[in-house]
Amino acid sequence: MTTAVNPNALWAGIVVEQLARCGLEAACIAPGSRSTPLTLAFDRHPAIQVYLHLDERSAAFFALGLAQATGRPVALVCTSGTAAAEFHPAVVEAYQAQIPLLVLTADRPHELRESGANQTIDQVKMYGDHVLWAMDVALPEAAPPAVALRNLRTLAARAYACAAGLRSGPVHLNFPFRKPLEPASPAAFQAVEEQVAALFAQPPGDLTVAHGEIQPTPTQVQRLAEAITGAERGLIVCGPRRAAAAGPDFADAVTALARASGYPILADPASGLRFGPHVADAPLVGAYDALLAAGDVPWPPPQLVLRLGAVPTSAALNAYLERVAAPTVHIRSSGVWADDSHLVHSFLQADPTLTCRRLAAELSPRGLGGWAQGWLAGSRAAGQVLAEAVEQGDFEGAAVAAAIDGLPAGANLFVGNSLPIRHVDRYGLPRLKPLQVFVNRGASGIDGITSTALGVAAAAPDRPTLLITGDISFYHDMNGLLALGQFGLGRFGVVLLNNRGGGIFRRLPVARFEPSFTHLFLTPHDLRFELVAQLYGLAYQQVAPGPAVGTQVSACLAEARPTLIEVPCDSAQDLAMGQAILQRVARVALQVDERQN
Amino acid sequence: MTTAVNPNALWAGIVVEQLARCGLEAACIAPGSRSTPLTLAFDRHPAIQVYLHLDERSAAFFALGLAQATGRPVALVCTSGTAAAEFHPAVVEAYQAQIPLLVLTADRPHELRESGANQTIDQVKMYGDHVLWAMDVALPEAAPPAVALRNLRTLAARAYACAAGLRSGPVHLNFPFRKPLEPASPAAFQAVEEQVAALFAQPPGDLTVAHGEIQPTPTQVQRLAEAITGAERGLIVCGPRRAAAAGPDFADAVTALARASGYPILADPASGLRFGPHVADAPLVGAYDALLAAGDVPWPPPQLVLRLGAVPTSAALNAYLERVAAPTVHIRSSGVWADDSHLVHSFLQADPTLTCRRLAAELSPRGLGGWAQGWLAGSRAAGQVLAEAVEQGDFEGAAVAAAIDGLPAGANLFVGNSLPIRHVDRYGLPRLKPLQVFVNRGASGIDGITSTALGVAAAAPDRPTLLITGDISFYHDMNGLLALGQFGLGRFGVVLLNNRGGGIFRRLPVARFEPSFTHLFLTPHDLRFELVAQLYGLAYQQVAPGPAVGTQVSACLAEARPTLIEVPCDSAQDLAMGQAILQRVARVALQVDERQN
Repeated sequence: MTTAVNPNALWAGIVVEQLARCGLEAACIAPGSRSTPLTLAFDRHPAIQVYLHLDERSAAFFALGLAQATGRPVALVCTSGTAAAEFHPAVVEAYQAQIPLLVLTADRPHELRESGANQTIDQVKMYGDHVLWAMDVALPEAAPPAVALRNLRTLAARAYACAAGLRSGPVHLNFPFRKPLEPASPAAFQAVEEQVAALFAQPPGDLTVAHGEIQPTPTQVQRLAEAITGAERGLIVCGPRRAAAAGPDFADAVTALARASGYPILADPASGLRFGPHVADAPLVGAYDALLAAGDVPWPPPQLVLRLGAVPTSAALNAYLERVAAPTVHIRSSGVWADDSHLVHSFLQADPTLTCRRLAAELSPRGLGGWAQGWLAGSRAAGQVLAEAVEQGDFEGAAVAAAIDGLPAGANLFVGNSLPIRHVDRYGLPRLKPLQVFVNRGASGIDGITSTALGVAAAAPDRPTLLITGDISFYHDMNGLLALGQFGLGRFGVVLLNNRGGGIFRRLPVARFEPSFTHLFLTPHDLRFELVAQLYGLAYQQVAPGPAVGTQVSACLAEARPTLIEVPCDSAQDLAMGQAILQRVARVALQVDERQN
Repeated sequence: MTTAVNPNALWAGIVVEQLARCGLEAACIAPGSRSTPLTLAFDRHPAIQVYLHLDERSAAFFALGLAQATGRPVALVCTSGTAAAEFHPAVVEAYQAQIPLLVLTADRPHELRESGANQTIDQVKMYGDHVLWAMDVALPEAAPPAVALRNLRTLAARAYACAAGLRSGPVHLNFPFRKPLEPASPAAFQAVEEQVAALFAQPPGDLTVAHGEIQPTPTQVQRLAEAITGAERGLIVCGPRRAAAAGPDFADAVTALARASGYPILADPASGLRFGPHVADAPLVGAYDALLAAGDVPWPPPQLVLRLGAVPTSAALNAYLERVAAPTVHIRSSGVWADDSHLVHSFLQADPTLTCRRLAAELSPRGLGGWAQGWLAGSRAAGQVLAEAVEQGDFEGAAVAAAIDGLPAGANLFVGNSLPIRHVDRYGLPRLKPLQVFVNRGASGIDGITSTALGVAAAAPDRPTLLITGDISFYHDMNGLLALGQFGLGRFGVVLLNNRGGGIFRRLPVARFEPSFTHLFLTPHDLRFELVAQLYGLAYQQVAPGPAVGTQVSACLAEARPTLIEVPCDSAQDLAMGQAILQRVARVALQVDERQN
């Protein structure tokens, strides 16, 4: 088969059409010449929305956010050279957090590789083991055999299916293109598109690559039910999950299992179980982090731990689980190991929603007995201490709790790493209003937080999105804020906890190693973020850490103007306040059990 | 051998002490917990200067700049996770441009790998083929055998030697560390340092890993000399070279060869041959880019091309060389291929300075005959056209030429990619004043230009450094400017050619593909860079593209306050001006030969 059309345009046209038929709706593109065939093909496709980014690092994290929020693969396009390496941090996060991404890098043709040609680097498998699959696509040919064109279709469909598979994540396709990179004129695209259309009318026709759902076998359900029945004292520990996988169905299924087993739920902020109507019925130990950080709980250890999702954020919870070393069952559909304490004795690769439902149906309902009530009473008492502290304000946790208070039901909450996620874990107690919580907890980097949050916002621009982040994270990805104006993301707010440096390091032993500590860990700076707000067109407010943060969050998300709410904090004072709060928790909450039992 | 000391501190102490003995003087460190052992060891070492950076991407490019300017390896330290992936773009550039870097990434111990542990990714060989050597260092042990500790010394010495080898570039050492990451107290470092000192008194004692120089054999010199003698019409084409390898010795050697062979020199701005006292004697075809872009030169093709360095920047020169397809000899000490036109028929891995000297001595001097005089006269005529245009101003090339005029002798000039390097190539004609020119032309990325320039500046803070960059490059790496205040880099200026988007793309065929072109290639923005200057403490000036730029450059570098000189440009008008200038060059310079001969 001879093609009269530009081979690059044909190649890209086939791939993009196939991706669109698989369900692709968004492509994040960074400018460049070598990627012209892909850029034009995406831009011309009516079903695909294109997001243009000038900084490839931000582009990749933005795509990650879009994919997090939609649960579907997002394409990412760049030119050859270091641009492709700029994607690497977000690719790592996508791999670790199982977020579907299609990384499409343009490359030079084979005669320019390893030849000293400009902007030419070795891009073949350049993300190493941080992608699920990597292919170097064939160089477009002027006279391709039919099978080569069919291969482009199966390649695109398989890449999409792999990214969105049972274990989802990033897939890398590297596209060598030889000049001329575009057809002779815009009009010549008509011939390309006719040829693409003709091709899709031929076998393999309406190509689909799908996967089923992993159900636990009846025997597996029965054995697990027996284990639960045999263990009166159990815990359901839910770590972070992909937001797209953690909807109301999941919350209802876990709630049903908790009520049937009599096991309380310890739910990470990113588990999908913290905020929503199920909170009315679910035995949630909302304040587990403060409770377990305050000291040893006075009640006996669990006899069984059911784990869902990734390793929880709470260091106190992980230390507790390691200390009690109870038999642990981990249910995870991706099959990816997530137990760095190496205490899991039974790992089941199965869909957790299905498994919880089956288990709940299989069990004779035990109801919430003394074991669960002890945890819940402890949590209520601890929660009371936290709520009082939050009301008085003047520390980062108060700002975070107030920000959550200020969110309207149905809002997105993106929580940055380092201290913010730990504050939300401790002070962001369960609420009945539904909130979608997003994090980058795959590799827990601080490098692309803002862009990921903006990608989440772009997935549904009418839904308000709040980012809670620290100053070092915010500094890292200020470039990402350019997206605000470019994509008209109005209902976006940032609560910037500014403790002027790496406040989290105060919690580490290295804090005693001065002057190295201040210079190389605390790293004080005096960046004036008001100027950054001006640069990127955000409204700006400075608010003390306390209830006023909630008022501002509420007001800013109701308007259509993105706002930077800077909250000046003092990390040394904050650490002391946190310790004082834990002492109060220890006094009231860890005594609860004595009154209960 | 049993160690009572913290094993991580011992491990890091040995490695850092060995690196210092090898000659390491600088370490760029990004904050993080897991890297504590390395961070503290570098900070405590009296011979090593530590540069702290908050954004790992900027840190890595800054280290690249330091290494470019000093010609010696620079260490780069980060914590585990995406931080290590942030180094990737600069690692790629270092590999391509052969800049010595020691990339030291902290990792989690083996029990946390692939276990779902926080901030844990697969870092083993994570830069793939973009490093010269990658090793996963042994986990520190409490009771290491003596050979394990000796291995740390040889490992460090070999890593340093590899990075600074005949083919220099980045080396990756990945260090797993298990908690506790630091000694029990700062005082406990004394025991660590005593043990390190004791170790260095034992075999292998004063360890050195060195390499010689690659000299051409007498037969190779003789054959090359015969080829030159047999070809009256020859060219010496010098592409970009590492600044550290392109000193006055190199310039003198190439000049000697040129005079002995009668071959004119076509010298890339980054070849080390554009600016310096040798310009008085060297037959430099200063305006080759304009001359060859203006049309076919009227004189006959060369019979021999001698190439040094990487592929030249000038598209017109490369197209000319491909058109004439003369027998081509390439001399390069690294042995790395650099000929994407695949016309080299004889590649000699040997030191170019030595080889040029030997050849000059071997030849019977031919002097500069009609062949060379034709090129030189053409260049003078073209140069005259360019100089007149520059004087009238109002285009980017005029700003660039004026900026170079404004530089004091001995200054550093860092030239950004995309348009700036092409402008310097065309309008930055040879001058007698010495200037050290730096570029990132390994992979020609636009992502880390500012930080690399700041690294160059930091290598000798008293020497003025000017960065000429475009707006998209500048936007990419604004974070890097934090280094200005942190390291007190006063004598630093930026000439920002702001054409508000990707002006270079106007030169490509895709410019006809509207509206995609404007949206996805030209990518207009309205960033107010004055705010960025304010954020990072630079003085700010806006200057029209013309001679005034030189005045401002001269004034700003004489003061101790870093300055952003924004030059508003219009890329459409610029393209038209450039074409008009070439038409004038074609009229006057390409007719020269007729009058000459």
